[in-house]
Amino acid sequence: MPRYEALAAEIAGAIRRGALRPGDRLPSVRAACASQRCSPATVFQAYYRLEAEGLVRARERSGYYVTEAAPPPLPEPERPSQPQAQAGPLDVSAQVFEILEATLAREVVPLGSAFPSPLLFPLPRLGRLAAGALQRLDPWTTIDDLGPGDPALRRQIARRYCAEGLAVAPEDVLITHGALEALNLCLAAVTRPGDKVLIESPTFYAALHALERLGLEAVEVPTHPREGIELDALEQAIQRHRPAACWLMTSFQNPLGFLMPEAKKQALVEALRRHRLPLIEDDVYAELHFGPSRPRPAKAFDTDGLVLHCGSFSKCLAPGYRIGWALAGRWRQAVSRLRLGSTLGASMPAQLAIAAYLEGGGYDRHLRLLRRRLAAQQAALAEAVARHFPPGCRATRPAGGYFLWIEMPEGVDALALHRRALAAGISLAPGPIFSARRGFRHCIRLNAGHGDAAREGPALATLGGWIAEMAAAAAR
Amino acid sequence: MPRYEALAAEIAGAIRRGALRPGDRLPSVRAACASQRCSPATVFQAYYRLEAEGLVRARERSGYYVTEAAPPPLPEPERPSQPQAQAGPLDVSAQVFEILEATLAREVVPLGSAFPSPLLFPLPRLGRLAAGALQRLDPWTTIDDLGPGDPALRRQIARRYCAEGLAVAPEDVLITHGALEALNLCLAAVTRPGDKVLIESPTFYAALHALERLGLEAVEVPTHPREGIELDALEQAIQRHRPAACWLMTSFQNPLGFLMPEAKKQALVEALRRHRLPLIEDDVYAELHFGPSRPRPAKAFDTDGLVLHCGSFSKCLAPGYRIGWALAGRWRQAVSRLRLGSTLGASMPAQLAIAAYLEGGGYDRHLRLLRRRLAAQQAALAEAVARHFPPGCRATRPAGGYFLWIEMPEGVDALALHRRALAAGISLAPGPIFSARRGFRHCIRLNAGHGDAAREGPALATLGGWIAEMAAAAAR
Repeated sequence: MPRYEALAAEIAGAIRRGALRPGDRLPSVRAACASQRCSPATVFQAYYRLEAEGLVRARERSGYYVTEAAPPPLPEPERPSQPQAQAGPLDVSAQVFEILEATLAREVVPLGSAFPSPLLFPLPRLGRLAAGALQRLDPWTTIDDLGPGDPALRRQIARRYCAEGLAVAPEDVLITHGALEALNLCLAAVTRPGDKVLIESPTFYAALHALERLGLEAVEVPTHPREGIELDALEQAIQRHRPAACWLMTSFQNPLGFLMPEAKKQALVEALRRHRLPLIEDDVYAELHFGPSRPRPAKAFDTDGLVLHCGSFSKCLAPGYRIGWALAGRWRQAVSRLRLGSTLGASMPAQLAIAAYLEGGGYDRHLRLLRRRLAAQQAALAEAVARHFPPGCRATRPAGGYFLWIEMPEGVDALALHRRALAAGISLAPGPIFSARRGFRHCIRLNAGHGDAAREGPALATLGGWIAEMAAAAAR
Repeated sequence: MPRYEALAAEIAGAIRRGALRPGDRLPSVRAACASQRCSPATVFQAYYRLEAEGLVRARERSGYYVTEAAPPPLPEPERPSQPQAQAGPLDVSAQVFEILEATLAREVVPLGSAFPSPLLFPLPRLGRLAAGALQRLDPWTTIDDLGPGDPALRRQIARRYCAEGLAVAPEDVLITHGALEALNLCLAAVTRPGDKVLIESPTFYAALHALERLGLEAVEVPTHPREGIELDALEQAIQRHRPAACWLMTSFQNPLGFLMPEAKKQALVEALRRHRLPLIEDDVYAELHFGPSRPRPAKAFDTDGLVLHCGSFSKCLAPGYRIGWALAGRWRQAVSRLRLGSTLGASMPAQLAIAAYLEGGGYDRHLRLLRRRLAAQQAALAEAVARHFPPGCRATRPAGGYFLWIEMPEGVDALALHRRALAAGISLAPGPIFSARRGFRHCIRLNAGHGDAAREGPALATLGGWIAEMAAAAAR
């Protein structure tokens, strides 16, 4: 057992025995170093571990404290969604954009944000590495590598997949302007206007937007809040609608947070193979797992090149750099040509900085720390929600990512709640933006990626009060 | 008269009088400094000026030589194009992509390239500036500024327009992933699938590709090789086809190189106003003018917000950085939302580097040098073409940019020439890729942006021989 785990276990024991009680302050790092004869890094690792387990909580500039007795967690949502079975064209309304724009303002409490806190990322180090790489840059690479992307970056991405047992060659990796470009290119490569595409219900709103822009129809498929899309329903939808593609998020889905079990991913790919149906797999949250290892994507089971797998560094390393990638299987050339005809290639400085970072080592260390922090922030948010939200609410318990999906009592209108919250300087993501037919009217998505308890706690208390009010009014 | 101009005039006089003769070497910079009692910068400026006038030519590592007697220039193309008047859907074939991909390989002589030489740009200085900016970066700006773009960069772009008399505010500027994203977003904002769009004939192939991806129909309008789109024909096409938009390049058009006269730009905007028709103005070459000042864009005459004007740094400062912008007039919000739903925003490191470069000064100095070099390279390419290409060929004489458009004798097949050239390691851009109906079969576009006379001279001699052969065979 490493030294820090032993220390964490010792403190956890003290908490369980009552020797340390809720609200007690843990020894300062300096004091713990002295008494335990270990390094500050060991103490920090032990405290982070305890924080991830929810046993202690950091207070800014003050230290670590034993967590106050937590309320029992909210029950989880249990039932799969039941979207309409019809396909239909899309119309992402101005309202959706107003909501998205509102979440970008820095002054609002960012519970509706799609992003984690940018303070979680090694931006200064990336900046230094960009500097070196840009000054050593061979000018010709700005033309040679513009299409497929920087060779070193493609190699590093392939290497990481290989380490997880996926046979990915650097030539398979097409670097894109964020995962969103990758997803849009893949969708365009496998569809023609008027085609139908299967999506989850609820689904990431950018998928709806992408379908709309390409003139595609959405078929929303019932989706279980803990296990993902229902395979029986998927099979039926395929037979009924003859879709051209599916677009799914198999690990820590936005907004539900579910991790599709590995056997289910395998069965999904098997079903695709039977129907020769391409899957666009949005895998941008997989690195943010709280469990011991990165969940394998559906792509891992794809022997026929039917999975167009898309990833990104935006959520796990370099927000604002806009670097993602596609492993487009049998559509590799088609995707690459769509890009040559549309945006040419990804931005070089960002690619070089990330390649240098990955080559320099330390990415896995950064990821371990990031996951611990997100796990702790999610535990804290779940606890605050359980404390402040009224009975009748349910909350997901994702094992990765940074979103919680809340089902409020029927009759509580998420859009009305959003408007009221925004006027009070609080953002949230109302359920209807995740649905082609504006369903999930009593649901909201909350962001645990900021971990700003000082602002989020009071905001959640306010929201909880309003939800209780609105539930009572609806029940009358 | 500045010192360098006096020196240049003195040497030009010596050449005219025959005191310096074709093939003579000019004094070395060191010797000229001593004899003229001036700085090396003055001598360089004088020699650059003479080179831009075509009077002298630099030979690598050897010095400046009086130009050999130049052949008379080829005649210019004179007649407007005559495309079919019907609208039609598009099908950018695999052939076009094969051609584009072939031009990207470093080992071929890049006469078909779309890019200027990357050695023309201050990439090391941009790299240093990126370093500083990234290390000072406020992490929150990766979220706050992701949508519209870096405020300093928007300010600098607006400032440059204001200096030219266009009233552009920083808030009008939407930073994009290269001009191509800007153009695509603008096109999507003003059209719906099935709409018709007016384009030049010939036109930039990415416009064809963009129309195809959005399910739009192209109406090709007769275009004069020296003055741009024919306004009478435009008027007729508007009345006949009721298009949703036009997409034009008004300054140094790719591939023809024409500069639409200012009065014509004004009349164009007037026609748009009458018909309430939006214009997507691709203005990425305007900074590469050989004349004294940047030509004003159609946007300068746009009082109604009907011009969606797109620019870029890719051709004049930072290739591979992928930073462009849109001034989208009355579609500003629509374009901004399309982007929020598709790629979110442009890459931060590239934006910060360019903003720091513009703020640091020196951009105008870089541009002056770049324009001089491109003018000299274009003069040299035109001369080599006149020397090597057979009678019956015509060549444009653009006053900016880095393309020459060559009309070969009727019956010479540009696609056959392209295949033969590529097999010999020479790229060129065959006319049919610039046309919705694969017209311009006897035309090619050549790139003067590399100025690599050592490789390009022999390549042009080879091409000239083949063209003569093919013309003779066609005449038989």
